[in-house]
Amino acid sequence: MSLEGKMLIGREAVSGSSTPIHAVNPATGEQLAPTYAGGTQAEVERACALAEAAFGTYRETTLEQRAAFLETVASEIEAIGDELIERAIAETGLPRARLEGERGRTCGQLRLFASVVRAGEWLDLRLDPALPERQPMPRADLRQRHIPLGPVAVFGASNFPLAFSVAGGDTASALAAGCPVIVKGHSAHPGTSELVGRAVQRAVEKRDLPEGVFSLLFGSGNEIGQALVADPRIQAVGFTGSRGGGTALMKTAQARPQPIPVYAEMSSINPVFLLPEALRARGATLAEGFVASLNMGAGQFCTNPGLVIAVKGPELDAFVEAAGDAVTGSAAQTMLTPGIHAAYEQGVGRLSSNSKVREAARGQVGESAHSCQAGLFVTTAADFLADPELQEEVFGATSLVIECADQNEMRQVASQLEGQLTATLQMDDGDLDAAKALLPILERKAGRILANGWPTGVEVCHAMVHGGPFPATSDSLTTSVGSAAIFRFLRPVCYQALPQGLLPEVLRDGNPWGVSRLVDGKREA
Amino acid sequence: MSLEGKMLIGREAVSGSSTPIHAVNPATGEQLAPTYAGGTQAEVERACALAEAAFGTYRETTLEQRAAFLETVASEIEAIGDELIERAIAETGLPRARLEGERGRTCGQLRLFASVVRAGEWLDLRLDPALPERQPMPRADLRQRHIPLGPVAVFGASNFPLAFSVAGGDTASALAAGCPVIVKGHSAHPGTSELVGRAVQRAVEKRDLPEGVFSLLFGSGNEIGQALVADPRIQAVGFTGSRGGGTALMKTAQARPQPIPVYAEMSSINPVFLLPEALRARGATLAEGFVASLNMGAGQFCTNPGLVIAVKGPELDAFVEAAGDAVTGSAAQTMLTPGIHAAYEQGVGRLSSNSKVREAARGQVGESAHSCQAGLFVTTAADFLADPELQEEVFGATSLVIECADQNEMRQVASQLEGQLTATLQMDDGDLDAAKALLPILERKAGRILANGWPTGVEVCHAMVHGGPFPATSDSLTTSVGSAAIFRFLRPVCYQALPQGLLPEVLRDGNPWGVSRLVDGKREA
Repeated sequence: MSLEGKMLIGREAVSGSSTPIHAVNPATGEQLAPTYAGGTQAEVERACALAEAAFGTYRETTLEQRAAFLETVASEIEAIGDELIERAIAETGLPRARLEGERGRTCGQLRLFASVVRAGEWLDLRLDPALPERQPMPRADLRQRHIPLGPVAVFGASNFPLAFSVAGGDTASALAAGCPVIVKGHSAHPGTSELVGRAVQRAVEKRDLPEGVFSLLFGSGNEIGQALVADPRIQAVGFTGSRGGGTALMKTAQARPQPIPVYAEMSSINPVFLLPEALRARGATLAEGFVASLNMGAGQFCTNPGLVIAVKGPELDAFVEAAGDAVTGSAAQTMLTPGIHAAYEQGVGRLSSNSKVREAARGQVGESAHSCQAGLFVTTAADFLADPELQEEVFGATSLVIECADQNEMRQVASQLEGQLTATLQMDDGDLDAAKALLPILERKAGRILANGWPTGVEVCHAMVHGGPFPATSDSLTTSVGSAAIFRFLRPVCYQALPQGLLPEVLRDGNPWGVSRLVDGKREA
Repeated sequence: MSLEGKMLIGREAVSGSSTPIHAVNPATGEQLAPTYAGGTQAEVERACALAEAAFGTYRETTLEQRAAFLETVASEIEAIGDELIERAIAETGLPRARLEGERGRTCGQLRLFASVVRAGEWLDLRLDPALPERQPMPRADLRQRHIPLGPVAVFGASNFPLAFSVAGGDTASALAAGCPVIVKGHSAHPGTSELVGRAVQRAVEKRDLPEGVFSLLFGSGNEIGQALVADPRIQAVGFTGSRGGGTALMKTAQARPQPIPVYAEMSSINPVFLLPEALRARGATLAEGFVASLNMGAGQFCTNPGLVIAVKGPELDAFVEAAGDAVTGSAAQTMLTPGIHAAYEQGVGRLSSNSKVREAARGQVGESAHSCQAGLFVTTAADFLADPELQEEVFGATSLVIECADQNEMRQVASQLEGQLTATLQMDDGDLDAAKALLPILERKAGRILANGWPTGVEVCHAMVHGGPFPATSDSLTTSVGSAAIFRFLRPVCYQALPQGLLPEVLRDGNPWGVSRLVDGKREA
């Protein structure tokens, strides 16, 4: 199909009238057709009105209908075929294998949410039967379920043009919850966004759902995004991006007459702790694994290992040397956008020009204008603890090694970290006590704790937490990856003494939908 | 025991040095000894330091230890005996039976949370076993549990001196979650607060817990409260009170370098819909039940029925007449504080002076200075829809009847309501269709929907939702009453490929604690 450069509002494709957006091939600098004219307040208004109108019907779909819709979105994305991959390669500079993998992940994610919808655990059904004879007061019949919040605004992320963009994790979980979604597409990959958006649009039509269940808007500045978050019909926001962008949306959401939740996944440097026995036994292997994780996707992952913490000594020196060699040999990789590249260069510059930081290695210089030259830097724990700027995320393939005097200082560094998405322990059997001493500190800092792995690569499953204390996210009680992400878009409602005919079907006597329930506090299958 | 007029910081009783607080008997105006000198930043600092120091140990208590602690708090409160009831009567003007009932509720609530802790559903355990053979990528072993956020600040409410004060719902659920609690006691009942605070303090000591698990501070202005919410060690806030107070705390919490969640339960007018058949068949009984609910506790309940909505006609006229007669005969009741009384008089004045509002009845004038004269007012749906001020809560025994032209207009009124804690349907069999048309609107407005009951009287159980969209609360995804209130103080952590010896015991192979788990998305007892 040929791209039209249009926004998708309900069942229509609409031309914008605001500042035009041009996709750019970051590898070549070449401008890609077509032009995407940005939307205005008028398109926000129209998409929100349609979403609001669709909500009543959409939230009343059966579990099966909603699950089938999510599966149809997945098949429609697959049906686009290679055109999607080629456009995504052109717009992002990411390699084919990565994008094919990401497409698999995106469709797998939609299908996981379909299974989650069917299982119904997300309804969190709770029944406390009436106790008419209780003294001194009878108890009324009380039943609880969760209902969707209403229309949700989703901001596409630049670094996952499929898995965290138009039909990515935020969209999938919001649709699974029963919320219509309005996506603000990322300006770096509008063509990819249009292709995926049209797939969602086709799924809406095929499954006979109200058109307002999904819309896709574009806008070059902050205007469209801010207008969306401020619109009274929008009831929650999903965002993956920079700390500045996330906190700006939080402010807008909180300043509304009715504040709404913003689920922003923002900033993380993902500390890796090399414990002594592991470092001694397999420093060279660790160096290799570390640099592979660091370079993955030119380091443009929220879970990129930006900090390595270990006790100073010959073993750490050997690790830095081996990792440095690997970094020196690292080929340059094209970054997603000129803006991301410029921010990366600035971040690396901050490290280079810091007198307390030593450059251990830099990678190959790239041929293209926006390529990422990897970097490895070293500083001491004392200097790190004294300079909060060293905790600032450098988005790209650069990491900072912290030399600690001893394990006590390692724990001090851990205690002073800001909130993180992940924290990793490289440990052998002899490191168990050291790991046990670090664990309670790291639990308070991060959403996910790994042993003997690398933080990049986030599994989409039930136990995943892609979240963590501020500034990793705006809401540490939630996750933006995995099946529990659905809870961000649901709220509980209690029904007291409703006649059976008025009760939502799922709560009626006899458990007609066969969903797990908590009855008087006890779990019933 | 004799009251000492002191704050409780860990195991110590501490005299304040700031503006003194004098409890006042609202029935007589008499000042009650002792004087409570307010705290300063120094006491906030000390309580927070102790809470932070206690957190590591307290959160690692076993389910049994934590449950036994909550039960000990309950027994220690009961062990105070009649002194507690007498002091609460003196400080609040509430009748003995009400306060005895509230003590029962408070202790029952603590014991419910003990059972919740033991059952372990709150841990939300999720296990996704490793799939080493999976293609194209193996899956690591992933396990999730919930951990407590950290020290919590709780603000005592004026209207529930026991059940939503020092050892009330917020404190019980935060302690159940594993969070140390610092209570800012309400200045209207410092003696009741000290008595209960000392009971909690004794329970901490008897159960051999670190002293910082609980502290109780006083302060006459906003200084102590704002300092608490701004302290970096505080990780969440529980508040029940006015919209102004709640939104001020929200602002402070959001302006912190690390924003934290504020769970504020603020403002609700709890609409009651009288559907035609019910109104026709039992208008007189409804009028009686309504006025009894309206007058309960001098109307000083968050769930007081402040709005009655019905279709205009002779049946509604008869209801208003019968309810008006009951209001006219209503004895005046002492309000909790001079401030609450003054705000009530102001609110009633706003209705009286509104040219679109008709006074249907006023209750008896009281003898004491701060007694609540009940009120019933009437307006039309058109006028209500045109004047947002008519949605403002009047905290006390006053309600506004809205005459609608037809059921369509009733739904319009429902659609325009702000967020509510409750919405009530009075309905007979013939009203089922009307109720079905209202239900989806009310679900989006309220946390609890009742049929043929009255909103006052909030059951403490598993299915309860005492919450709702803003401004009813600051976070519609949560409840402040019932066992699900514990989730406000917990966040998920995922453990990837941790060796058994490092994994938290509850997540180890073989389910050693015997807690319900979601394994690969399937519920296992």
